[in-house]
Amino acid sequence: MTALTTTEPTTTATSVASVLHRARTLVAPALRDAIGALPEPERRIARYHRGWCEADGTQLPSSAGGEGGGKAVRPALVFLAARAVGGPAECAVPGAVAVELIHDFSLLHDDVIDGDPLRRHRSAAWAVYGTPAAVLTGDALLVGALRALMATPGPLADTAVREALVMLSDLMVGQSQDVAFEKVGHVEVGQYLAMAAGKTGALMGCACALGGVLAGADAERVAGLRDFGRCLGVAFQCVDDLLGIWGDSAQSGKPVGADLAARKKSLPVVAALADEGAAGRSLAALYARPEPLNESEIALAAELVERAGGREATEREVSRQTAAAMRALSRARPTAEVYRQLHELAMLLTRRDR
Amino acid sequence: MTALTTTEPTTTATSVASVLHRARTLVAPALRDAIGALPEPERRIARYHRGWCEADGTQLPSSAGGEGGGKAVRPALVFLAARAVGGPAECAVPGAVAVELIHDFSLLHDDVIDGDPLRRHRSAAWAVYGTPAAVLTGDALLVGALRALMATPGPLADTAVREALVMLSDLMVGQSQDVAFEKVGHVEVGQYLAMAAGKTGALMGCACALGGVLAGADAERVAGLRDFGRCLGVAFQCVDDLLGIWGDSAQSGKPVGADLAARKKSLPVVAALADEGAAGRSLAALYARPEPLNESEIALAAELVERAGGREATEREVSRQTAAAMRALSRARPTAEVYRQLHELAMLLTRRDR
Repeated sequence: MTALTTTEPTTTATSVASVLHRARTLVAPALRDAIGALPEPERRIARYHRGWCEADGTQLPSSAGGEGGGKAVRPALVFLAARAVGGPAECAVPGAVAVELIHDFSLLHDDVIDGDPLRRHRSAAWAVYGTPAAVLTGDALLVGALRALMATPGPLADTAVREALVMLSDLMVGQSQDVAFEKVGHVEVGQYLAMAAGKTGALMGCACALGGVLAGADAERVAGLRDFGRCLGVAFQCVDDLLGIWGDSAQSGKPVGADLAARKKSLPVVAALADEGAAGRSLAALYARPEPLNESEIALAAELVERAGGREATEREVSRQTAAAMRALSRARPTAEVYRQLHELAMLLTRRDR
Repeated sequence: MTALTTTEPTTTATSVASVLHRARTLVAPALRDAIGALPEPERRIARYHRGWCEADGTQLPSSAGGEGGGKAVRPALVFLAARAVGGPAECAVPGAVAVELIHDFSLLHDDVIDGDPLRRHRSAAWAVYGTPAAVLTGDALLVGALRALMATPGPLADTAVREALVMLSDLMVGQSQDVAFEKVGHVEVGQYLAMAAGKTGALMGCACALGGVLAGADAERVAGLRDFGRCLGVAFQCVDDLLGIWGDSAQSGKPVGADLAARKKSLPVVAALADEGAAGRSLAALYARPEPLNESEIALAAELVERAGGREATEREVSRQTAAAMRALSRARPTAEVYRQLHELAMLLTRRDR
């Protein structure tokens, strides 16, 4: 299959940008309808969360076309997956709406659960509207996502709803493990990867599977797409972890070293703590202290993670998961053009200017 | 149809008690499995919330058979609805599990939203385990409920999932309206009834509809069952409102006059505020004051609600909704025996020792 080696690095940036732009444009009307169907004030809170409006409801200029709110990576995965198996992207619109709304649901509740006051460079919804309103909006978005799938015309709606429900169970388990990790002393690399597969991999896997389902692909091709998205999601989470320590604060919207300050057990830290050398032991001692870390201690922690091999181990995991994703994608027998586009999207998601 | 007049008041208490007992017994194993499939700590929190264990996980003696946690009214409705249209109760077990779990989900998130520290005479889950854990447990229960329905053997699972998703949209709207009412100055009786239809009617309507769906009834009979449950749910909510003002504190587990102290816009209050006489105006003045109400002011508020006709209007609404429920039930063409049992259950739910 020649497709497997067809990559055009010189055209990547433009090509992925246009794939993402088309995805935003294609999902926008149905997404606006789904969010417009929410009762107030949940509708406004969902719009604020997506970056479509200010806290008081004033429309933001960037959302003139209702296209604000993130890069539309998940809708792009849904549409490309549908095209990969020969469907038109249009057939997968309900899937793209559903994954966006489920992503919003999980972020809204996540921020409540973590008490994180920032989201996408702005105050988190709970910090603006209160925890009760954020909880209720998340609930309404979850239900709205499943209703959007259920409204798919034709006989594939029920299969799509089932795909989403299985994913949601995995997402719940991953979310639960993520919270639990912050309370336990020791986390294994394998436990971390299982958590990431639930918390981040499940939804991206579902995005790809839904594209396949709604395009009428058989179970084997859907499974290849699902596994592609799932491995890509784990790689994406690992990159997020790297950015949480060494990322550009202006880009991430979070303070430098925020994950270390919060003593988060992200993969670089988990891998570094598994190191039995001096750096790993010093890091363990620093993480075990009850006091908050000051700026120089955060810098020291970052250095210890790196010296103990946490950064390198995480980068290796990114490569490993990305390679596994591309192997899984081959099992879906995608067209050459879409294979190339999904590969480029995968590269974009796992490089993010480190 | 002679069934419509077959009521045996002398045997009511025993008969309903045995219907509820059978429902608890029939739903218990599948309910234990569904909750057992949750990850920890959500599993423990769900068990605590249901009254199956103490906060530390110690099993409570009353739950030896896993049958703790409420009267099993909703499972009884599911099973009776299945039997009403000629099915065996057993076919409706996934529906009974789903409505119990959705009820638990809504209570867990409700208590977070209202900041209510008490539930079923005990500390609410959020007060014991924290808001994040209660939110996550609610999410996991909602997903678990839909998974339970999805796992129904045979071809009826998808119809059942659709029934539940439509209900959940109504529930979200009702919940949203309920929260909004506490912030607006004036609520019409009609608005209140629409809210109660979503917040309480939708789930009880779904319980009955699911029994019909899982027993293979046609759409017309399912609609009759759904409308029966929905009207019964509104009647039940009205009774709950009466108990929130004049109820026995030992029975409700809430302080006397709690709804008035919280200035809740329950139906007796909404109806009383619509009265243009002196009592209605005095009540409006009391509700408009920013200070908390002391004990004698709460007693005065209760008296004003009664003098302004709020109690009587609510009692009339209970009768009206109960009568509408029984008319809807006839449309489902239930067997005579089950009609009688559902009527008795309706009487129990709308009398509750006032």
